[in-house]
Amino acid sequence: MHINEFQTMMRQIYFHHDSKRGAKRTFLWLVEEVEELGEAIKGKDKKALENEVADALAWLASLANVVNIDLEKAAMAKYDHKCPKCKQIPCECTRSFQP
Amino acid sequence: MHINEFQTMMRQIYFHHDSKRGAKRTFLWLVEEVEELGEAIKGKDKKALENEVADALAWLASLANVVNIDLEKAAMAKYDHKCPKCKQIPCECTRSFQP
Repeated sequence: MHINEFQTMMRQIYFHHDSKRGAKRTFLWLVEEVEELGEAIKGKDKKALENEVADALAWLASLANVVNIDLEKAAMAKYDHKCPKCKQIPCECTRSFQP
Repeated sequence: MHINEFQTMMRQIYFHHDSKRGAKRTFLWLVEEVEELGEAIKGKDKKALENEVADALAWLASLANVVNIDLEKAAMAKYDHKCPKCKQIPCECTRSFQP
């Protein structure tokens, strides 16, 4: 499924909720899901991890719907077969990827 | 672009960095990008918001690569044209979407 098709599907399922909740509170849900993803990474349950990865993507798509951004267009504008910093594939940056 | 194609593209650009950094530190980058997304939501700069949404998706895909999860499969297993809770489209849940 295309990224924008997934976003449209999320709109069909959830936009009536998302639009009422608004951007800031939808963002809080994304944060909560990312926290749950962090917990799942510590564990050994692959199914739980898949579930949390799915939720993080779903809430990111919901948030993109609320703020009227095309997730696929935004992602491809920045990452279309290149690192946006060094413009290479694979990326040749060094220091910027060591938090 | 399909979700799994985007994930593969992220693998081609970044997996040599991501695999060395590991799941926990890659997750920390995702958290940082989500925090930046939260800041962008407060502002009025649409381009900055698009940029942060793109980064959040990119780091989620990088993390999925590190933990060996197919982002598209995981998302579709849970959200394939239905709310996973009420099984309806549009979702008919009430209380579960009010943080």
